[in-house]
Amino acid sequence: MGDMTDLFPTDVYATRLARAAELCREQGLAGLVIGTGPELAYLTGSWLSSHERLTALVVPVEGRPVLLAPQTDIGDLALSALPHLDVLISGWVDGDDAHARAVAVLDDGPVALGSSLTTLHVLRLQELLDAPTLPAATTLKELFMRKDEAEIEQLALAAAAIDRVQERVPSLLREGRTENQVAADLQALILKEHDVVDFVIVGSGPNGANPHHSHSARVLETGDVVVVDVGGTRGPGYHSDSTRTYVVGGAGEAPADAAAAYGVLQAAHAAAMRQARPGVTAESVDRAAREVIAEAGYGEYFIHRTGHGIGLSTHEEPYIMAGNDLVLEPGMCFSIEPGIYLPGRWGMRLEDIVVVSADGVESLSHQQRELR
Amino acid sequence: MGDMTDLFPTDVYATRLARAAELCREQGLAGLVIGTGPELAYLTGSWLSSHERLTALVVPVEGRPVLLAPQTDIGDLALSALPHLDVLISGWVDGDDAHARAVAVLDDGPVALGSSLTTLHVLRLQELLDAPTLPAATTLKELFMRKDEAEIEQLALAAAAIDRVQERVPSLLREGRTENQVAADLQALILKEHDVVDFVIVGSGPNGANPHHSHSARVLETGDVVVVDVGGTRGPGYHSDSTRTYVVGGAGEAPADAAAAYGVLQAAHAAAMRQARPGVTAESVDRAAREVIAEAGYGEYFIHRTGHGIGLSTHEEPYIMAGNDLVLEPGMCFSIEPGIYLPGRWGMRLEDIVVVSADGVESLSHQQRELR
Repeated sequence: MGDMTDLFPTDVYATRLARAAELCREQGLAGLVIGTGPELAYLTGSWLSSHERLTALVVPVEGRPVLLAPQTDIGDLALSALPHLDVLISGWVDGDDAHARAVAVLDDGPVALGSSLTTLHVLRLQELLDAPTLPAATTLKELFMRKDEAEIEQLALAAAAIDRVQERVPSLLREGRTENQVAADLQALILKEHDVVDFVIVGSGPNGANPHHSHSARVLETGDVVVVDVGGTRGPGYHSDSTRTYVVGGAGEAPADAAAAYGVLQAAHAAAMRQARPGVTAESVDRAAREVIAEAGYGEYFIHRTGHGIGLSTHEEPYIMAGNDLVLEPGMCFSIEPGIYLPGRWGMRLEDIVVVSADGVESLSHQQRELR
Repeated sequence: MGDMTDLFPTDVYATRLARAAELCREQGLAGLVIGTGPELAYLTGSWLSSHERLTALVVPVEGRPVLLAPQTDIGDLALSALPHLDVLISGWVDGDDAHARAVAVLDDGPVALGSSLTTLHVLRLQELLDAPTLPAATTLKELFMRKDEAEIEQLALAAAAIDRVQERVPSLLREGRTENQVAADLQALILKEHDVVDFVIVGSGPNGANPHHSHSARVLETGDVVVVDVGGTRGPGYHSDSTRTYVVGGAGEAPADAAAAYGVLQAAHAAAMRQARPGVTAESVDRAAREVIAEAGYGEYFIHRTGHGIGLSTHEEPYIMAGNDLVLEPGMCFSIEPGIYLPGRWGMRLEDIVVVSADGVESLSHQQRELR
């Protein structure tokens, strides 16, 4: 995603960095060590990837943050806000102890580690730190989960982009075509509207009953129920994610049990939308959708969570699922995507991205929700 | 990479799993917790990916290994050797404490954690373990680094596949075409020979001087030096990686300084090939290439390591670089890829994959090494 140079103004990142340091101070930490990925992009606009080698943004509670990266990758940082921020850019070469240099930026005290760091980095930092470590995801939770207006605007643009892709799906689903052919067309359509294709699911007939099916050589037949779940990345790195369910030949060709179940799915989606608002828990939204489906007798066929947060990553907090007592607040963005999956027969899912408003949620998707 | 169902026979995986448990016992560990990715593929043939949710292969020193995965992903395990191995498959659903279930498989004692696990998983496992953790990459090092015959055969097939792609490059590099156009052609050629495209670098003229350039809208001109570095994944997940340097219009059109430097590059490549053999250190191979380039006066323009191990991941031990005193052994596979990069002018790199034999190395690439 090195090409996504569509950044926010520099002061957006400067404010986020300052707020991150402030959260560390409030929580009694020495600071943060953030790896590459969404957290780095959130704080600096950089999507640099340096494979197994350490790239780390070290944010101390006091003083200047330091961005450590392999010397060969330093040039790529020009694509981010980093050259314009008060951050020391520091390259390392083979033979340097990059982890020791990261740790040296921080005073004594607990350190929060970024979500994307992998085992070798985490264990090496712990070895050098001589202080407790905890997840930066927790430290920065409020910052990431509550999207500001600029972020919501980006997510709305992403939702509109994927709406335009879904709008074209009925013309692609014709008897005799394969899921793979439809998926190739969808890839091209997503790329027209985004910088990156994240995923394409075309699950026809029995394949739709596996929520993680991608696409296959299966040939579409009239009356097939087809789950189309698509997403991409655009702008400064914000994701789209949308699912609609279609019937090859038109809704009138749907198997009777699928047509009936689809009404239940719409009701479950609407129930979750009604439940979601500031002050309620994430699990209560999951429960609202689940109860509707269970009451209609399909409970055992709704086999995944109701939704996931979305932003600079496709899956993030708040997870809309059993066991998550997180309380929703204005500015949180997540999917509402109940599904019903009848093994060997068909699957269906209805997914929109919503943002929590002052007293409810607003859908960022404006695609109609009928079976088509 | 869910489509790579081209597995080794089941007993290959059974032997690897048994050997992993044995290594844990020899090192006084309670066992392993491995996440998704190359280590899981090595031990079970599975390339399952479950995003942020825990998928873990837990290997105790005594008793049956357990594969924990989100219930929705269990179906995908059928693509691997897991259904045929003596491994307990255990699904978890939202609300379950998957990490606690992983830890419960192990007796007391230090635990080795897989390389792909990220911060949240590592910290949660540590919290539950009440025992030291260390990198599984270290525990399993000898297993991963020393490729057996079946693996070397797969790497040779991958090398032959990418050789066929490089063979076609001269016909693609014509004046007036853009790097992006050439890269699109290369993507298609790589896909014909592999299951997945890993990367495509087309660095023409000054772009070649940035070793991490991918490709751009730059238009090729006669006399441009062009670095083409390509790789893909095939078979049970083995990678190819090959770099050749070309001149648009033919080697005769090369700038005089580039033609001279290319001779130095070939000599550096040959020196590293001669140095590499059982019993010498990885860093000595790096030094051999570096000395040739430095003596010719280009030392400051060789700005990266000489090579990296390759197998089920594109970059792995042994890293052929300063500071790595790892001793080479038969069966180790890695790249030898010295480069010379003149900022603002041109870059050049020559890369083959080699395997350490009884008394030297053998190149898996059989592509000629001239400037074309």
